[in-house]
Amino acid sequence: MKFSPKVQGLIEAFKCLPGVGAKSAQRMAFHLLERNRAGADALSEALSVAMRDVGHCRQCRNFTEADVCDICLSEKRKQSGLICVVESPADVIAIEQTGEFQGRYFVLMGHLSPIDGIGPGDLGLDVLETTLQQDNVSELILATNPTVEGEATAHYIASLAKDFNVSVSRIAHGVPVGGELEYVDGNTLSHALSGRKNY
Amino acid sequence: MKFSPKVQGLIEAFKCLPGVGAKSAQRMAFHLLERNRAGADALSEALSVAMRDVGHCRQCRNFTEADVCDICLSEKRKQSGLICVVESPADVIAIEQTGEFQGRYFVLMGHLSPIDGIGPGDLGLDVLETTLQQDNVSELILATNPTVEGEATAHYIASLAKDFNVSVSRIAHGVPVGGELEYVDGNTLSHALSGRKNY
Repeated sequence: MKFSPKVQGLIEAFKCLPGVGAKSAQRMAFHLLERNRAGADALSEALSVAMRDVGHCRQCRNFTEADVCDICLSEKRKQSGLICVVESPADVIAIEQTGEFQGRYFVLMGHLSPIDGIGPGDLGLDVLETTLQQDNVSELILATNPTVEGEATAHYIASLAKDFNVSVSRIAHGVPVGGELEYVDGNTLSHALSGRKNY
Repeated sequence: MKFSPKVQGLIEAFKCLPGVGAKSAQRMAFHLLERNRAGADALSEALSVAMRDVGHCRQCRNFTEADVCDICLSEKRKQSGLICVVESPADVIAIEQTGEFQGRYFVLMGHLSPIDGIGPGDLGLDVLETTLQQDNVSELILATNPTVEGEATAHYIASLAKDFNVSVSRIAHGVPVGGELEYVDGNTLSHALSGRKNY
């Protein structure tokens, strides 16, 4: 048995969301139809507006509806001379929430992955090169994910930055704060040991 | 730190979905912006179409964009003389998927809940009464949830149906097929025992 076509259409459309299968899609559709039609209309509007207007910042490639995003426009951040390279916009938020970093970002929107056909051009590394060339960048902080692809991407960008006389650093790998040694994997532990600091 | 206004607006809008908090909303927004803009446009369109057109079936109160839904229109189902009363459209689907039931439905869109101000009128019981009066209904099957509110609602509808000389039944409570007795709660087990059948 099928629902009526427009209800079925809505359920199918919800399946484009990550982590949403048949049951969740059905639950979302019924929830909105039954209890929150105003919210559904707002969601529909927000989706169409965002898809129409939101693009990438010309400088850092983060999502924004402006030509250049607020972070890149900040003179104070530019003067810090720091650029933090991350894989995704979510990483920018994560770092911003620490309140520790006052420089600019560069968002790769992915990582090098030759098997998927993702090369340096797809990560906008030509844009990064231009920034390294023109702006007064003192340090490039590589904050890609500590995965095989993330490490490979960091390695590639590090070798690329050498040509521009910019110092390059990689965020520390080690035991997460609040974690228990017993449950930390061996790879992380060996990173934590080799990266030990004088106390 | 905030995202640009339209990205932030999209993330906020996703929070109207059930089970979607700040992190999931962000993940959904980024997923669509990065990887599936066509899907997002389709979702926006499906939402606005569904919210505009989908209402309730005049007879069974299930969701449909038509005046009367396909199930209620079926002459074969009407002739069966059976009406199954359920709490939500999702329950209709669950029963339809068994392929066992060939009657019509009546969807309460909730259950009696005086504390929330939900009375018989909100469940469309006047519509059900009209059906019982006019159509040739032989049996009313109460398939509300086996919760306190569901049982109370079933009880209320049963007493209401008595006036119309319609036989009323309640779906069986017992041990779920494939379950293990050890893990079944006591209440269900005592239902299973008291509802035992000759073998």
